[in-house]
Amino acid sequence: MNTFGNKFRLTTFGESHGVAVGGIIDGCPSGIRIDFDAVAADLSRRRGKAGAGASARALQESDQVEWLSGLLDGITLGTPIGFIVRNTAQQPDDYSNLEHVFRPGHADLSYLKKYGIRDARGGGRASARETVSRVVAGSIAKQILAEKGVSVSAKVIMVAGFGEERADQWEALISEARQDGDSVGGVVEGLISGLKAGVGEPVFDKLQAMLAYSMMSIPAVKGFEYGEGFREAQMRGSRCNLLRDGISGGISTGDDIRFRVAFKPTPSIAREQIMQALEPDGSFTERIVSINGRHDACVAMRAPVIVESMAALVLVNLI
Amino acid sequence: MNTFGNKFRLTTFGESHGVAVGGIIDGCPSGIRIDFDAVAADLSRRRGKAGAGASARALQESDQVEWLSGLLDGITLGTPIGFIVRNTAQQPDDYSNLEHVFRPGHADLSYLKKYGIRDARGGGRASARETVSRVVAGSIAKQILAEKGVSVSAKVIMVAGFGEERADQWEALISEARQDGDSVGGVVEGLISGLKAGVGEPVFDKLQAMLAYSMMSIPAVKGFEYGEGFREAQMRGSRCNLLRDGISGGISTGDDIRFRVAFKPTPSIAREQIMQALEPDGSFTERIVSINGRHDACVAMRAPVIVESMAALVLVNLI
Amino acid sequence: MNTFGNKFRLTTFGESHGVAVGGIIDGCPSGIRIDFDAVAADLSRRRGKAGAGASARALQESDQVEWLSGLLDGITLGTPIGFIVRNTAQQPDDYSNLEHVFRPGHADLSYLKKYGIRDARGGGRASARETVSRVVAGSIAKQILAEKGVSVSAKVIMVAGFGEERADQWEALISEARQDGDSVGGVVEGLISGLKAGVGEPVFDKLQAMLAYSMMSIPAVKGFEYGEGFREAQMRGSRCNLLRDGISGGISTGDDIRFRVAFKPTPSIAREQIMQALEPDGSFTERIVSINGRHDACVAMRAPVIVESMAALVLVNLI
Amino acid sequence: MNTFGNKFRLTTFGESHGVAVGGIIDGCPSGIRIDFDAVAADLSRRRGKAGAGASARALQESDQVEWLSGLLDGITLGTPIGFIVRNTAQQPDDYSNLEHVFRPGHADLSYLKKYGIRDARGGGRASARETVSRVVAGSIAKQILAEKGVSVSAKVIMVAGFGEERADQWEALISEARQDGDSVGGVVEGLISGLKAGVGEPVFDKLQAMLAYSMMSIPAVKGFEYGEGFREAQMRGSRCNLLRDGISGGISTGDDIRFRVAFKPTPSIAREQIMQALEPDGSFTERIVSINGRHDACVAMRAPVIVESMAALVLVNLI
Repeated sequence: MNTFGNKFRLTTFGESHGVAVGGIIDGCPSGIRIDFDAVAADLSRRRGKAGAGASARALQESDQVEWLSGLLDGITLGTPIGFIVRNTAQQPDDYSNLEHVFRPGHADLSYLKKYGIRDARGGGRASARETVSRVVAGSIAKQILAEKGVSVSAKVIMVAGFGEERADQWEALISEARQDGDSVGGVVEGLISGLKAGVGEPVFDKLQAMLAYSMMSIPAVKGFEYGEGFREAQMRGSRCNLLRDGISGGISTGDDIRFRVAFKPTPSIAREQIMQALEPDGSFTERIVSINGRHDACVAMRAPVIVESMAALVLVNLI
Repeated sequence: MNTFGNKFRLTTFGESHGVAVGGIIDGCPSGIRIDFDAVAADLSRRRGKAGAGASARALQESDQVEWLSGLLDGITLGTPIGFIVRNTAQQPDDYSNLEHVFRPGHADLSYLKKYGIRDARGGGRASARETVSRVVAGSIAKQILAEKGVSVSAKVIMVAGFGEERADQWEALISEARQDGDSVGGVVEGLISGLKAGVGEPVFDKLQAMLAYSMMSIPAVKGFEYGEGFREAQMRGSRCNLLRDGISGGISTGDDIRFRVAFKPTPSIAREQIMQALEPDGSFTERIVSINGRHDACVAMRAPVIVESMAALVLVNLI
Repeated sequence: MNTFGNKFRLTTFGESHGVAVGGIIDGCPSGIRIDFDAVAADLSRRRGKAGAGASARALQESDQVEWLSGLLDGITLGTPIGFIVRNTAQQPDDYSNLEHVFRPGHADLSYLKKYGIRDARGGGRASARETVSRVVAGSIAKQILAEKGVSVSAKVIMVAGFGEERADQWEALISEARQDGDSVGGVVEGLISGLKAGVGEPVFDKLQAMLAYSMMSIPAVKGFEYGEGFREAQMRGSRCNLLRDGISGGISTGDDIRFRVAFKPTPSIAREQIMQALEPDGSFTERIVSINGRHDACVAMRAPVIVESMAALVLVNLI
Repeated sequence: MNTFGNKFRLTTFGESHGVAVGGIIDGCPSGIRIDFDAVAADLSRRRGKAGAGASARALQESDQVEWLSGLLDGITLGTPIGFIVRNTAQQPDDYSNLEHVFRPGHADLSYLKKYGIRDARGGGRASARETVSRVVAGSIAKQILAEKGVSVSAKVIMVAGFGEERADQWEALISEARQDGDSVGGVVEGLISGLKAGVGEPVFDKLQAMLAYSMMSIPAVKGFEYGEGFREAQMRGSRCNLLRDGISGGISTGDDIRFRVAFKPTPSIAREQIMQALEPDGSFTERIVSINGRHDACVAMRAPVIVESMAALVLVNLI
């Protein structure tokens, strides 16, 4: 369903080309003064920067949050916080050639099969626009965590296979891909500091399981690892036992926790692609189609604030 | 908590050195004839084989399931299925030197910090013995899935950095590590076939998110990826769009789904290690201690049936 | 928390004197054409009629629903339906004399003790205004049930101790109470027809348990019974066994289900009452205060549509 | 499903004529020394006394609890507590004439319609035997509450229409009904004392809603009310506002809470009754049948400890 968490619960709604996206934060403690500027700053990070491959639409959305409940003079009442962010920069005409066409790497066809109906303008719920609500709630979660001395941060550590030591070339790589009508992937690393020992549940809701669940729920994510991750499968136990990766038996140890999240390239690319199309007679054919729209050439660049938000939502639920 | 799933719900209990492990399966459909031999066979796979690095204890446990409810002449009633598996081969004396010592890579200390008390004999709930209940329930889940044409399988694809093409050397690698009082890691690949389109939820409970959550809840797992995983972060979008990885927008497409799970080496190794110890005065010191017990030299070898079980529990809840 | 149901889930937000009330309906099936007129008609029933004791505020609110997501041309997409209803007729000045005073029979003091903060204008979340969101979702739930042949209806059967056979005197009784600066209680009876056998869970989530839970969550409700209810405690078994009350072992039998809900008189009355007051020095004193505001003289009169809504939400979750 | 609570969670299993009943208590805090004698005493109260109408079977069951996990030397570890109580006094032959017959007032037919299969020996999950697990968990919950100064008690206040002031006649009334091959109902009153202000949630999970849900989940319960209950529907607001019933806006006020629960007469009576029967050709006919078995003539007499248990489970989850 569209709810994340069981104590600090975020329930979201909204299609990319509908009236608004938004959500309800239930279980936020009372008496917290919300830093609205910090929320706006996080939404700005989500929109991204032109040079870093952000889409034209993202850059045009103002992302003004309307706070509808749960606050009195900016202080939380302990009651549910309803909020909406209106969609203002849609261009549904961009999708006029896609009404009966299913974009590769997108959820168009799987939605149609699941629901028997879909909003063909933009990705509907599958659009990255849905992450606006996650960032609003995640920003508040980070504020709550900060008061407890816990910080959550994330950064891009690889673009198109180039690591941090060659970060100065990332913009050029992204630009080059965009000029080719193509896109590139990347890896985001998250860091949790200041978390005291004892957070996480021992069997199913292990801390690493909740982090993996939350990260894999972000659009375009293909993999998750923590500590040394896949590399540990190649080490010997005597070596691994020397690592301090911040989680033991699913429970935090008090040490820093580092994790990595793999983002595939955005599947919305300008170059012509073969796509499945639904003909009026109900049969499927293949067509060569270009995706118009205004899309990111590298979604990973805008992802760190989303990664932070999801990690913060996990932690605020487990603490 | 100790419950997995919301429709086909498994709740588990049991410490490795207590009376029994077991669980309750709630939400199993009525009218299903349980194949008890298949359950026994899966438990046997979990125990492992001597040459493949299984522990002496695992090999000695008979793992007899006592079915307490929910069945009439072997057919499910639709009511909760209670089951227990008694622990018969414990050797608590193996842990007599560990009562106030915290093994590196184990949950000993994090449990103590979380609960203020722990069962120092074996790993308690953190022991891999807890996975017995997962395999019992997972085996039933696989039977239900098989009737719907869905198969779930898993196999080891890498041990100590050696891939499948050199699988003939795995036993030697494991044996060598054991002789060194050490252990090795591995990678398990899962395959889901026959799943129809439309399974999975679009936002938080994406199919890949539920799979990641379930796999990361298995002891010793450090990473999860599906499709081409981390490699996709280095590809271009035009290339990725040609992949068919079985999930789109969190929802199954009808294609096969492949995923990989990284297991670290078992942290219980025979060689002497530096461990933290709790002194009678409440202070922590360091000691050099050997772990006795009877432990796997490569947990990944016994893991495929656990990976299958968790994938089956995910699917049976989403279908 | 502020979520009702696990399949067709309603999450609500909104204080009586805030910007808006609203909610998210998650899990509504796709492909349903919403009858917006029926929703408006149910909201109109909730507002009540002047003669029947409805408050001036209720009568002034227009209760326009803004639908924000989950719909395409009035048809459900299967995605969450976000909606808001703006508060337009608040008169916060009515509460200026109540900022540090706690009305008897209200949640003012218990909120302050629970959260350490409260919105003193109106009842906040405890106001009957919160039921707007229940009626919106309940109206949709009734539409879904109607397609399955299930009808849910409710009516007042007693006011101030006068049963249906003297219903012609109810308005006079209510009017008299209001003139006295007082209020009266009532009983609402619900009727579920057309429900097929097999709905409800056998142990905890018995159909009658879910109905009781939902009804007792309505403000001002003090009791619930189904079938012959408390009268059955005085019957013999041979007599009770002849009754057909529509539920057996927690599961519907296919017969009609009748239940009754007791509403206390609205506690907001005009006459002077002794109230607890919080003095600037933190001590509690007693004061004689009148409640201004604009309140119902008999909440039971507006309650049938709320009772229907809650019953419909229960059923749509169990079916 | 078969789980009660979300923090202190009881999941139960077991048919009345199966191997055992039992459950898992998940979320019990660590470090609590269980008073096993108190648990045994509560189970003894559940079995009842011969003169007070308890069934012969109940009196014969030893109700020995086997504790399987979650405890070390009688102290809770914070891990799930698995327990079973074997069924030892079944007499399945009593039900040999009922295999294709559906007892009036029982769940026999509704189970068959829901699941397509049923265990015809005794009531299966619908039997009052299922409440053994509730009493085990409730007894522990009461111990936890007692440490926080909260007491939960319950007593019979009416049998067959005779109130407490004529309690000396109850045994005679019950005995008379039994001699007639019949049974009688009763009312149980619960009392919660020492609960501090602030417990309960303001909208759906109101304290009274959770209490109603828990009580209505007990077999044979037909009604619930708190404070003055249905009588308040006949009072004026000025009068009701003077009552202190312990809950305001769904949240405890710190005052005592009193509630009443109506139990119908046990439907298993010895005298001949008309019952529906399923003929070999699939048609339904009517037959005159006697119920053998060994049944209570007044279930309300054994109910107080069950009422206490459910109230305690509600409170321990909300605190």
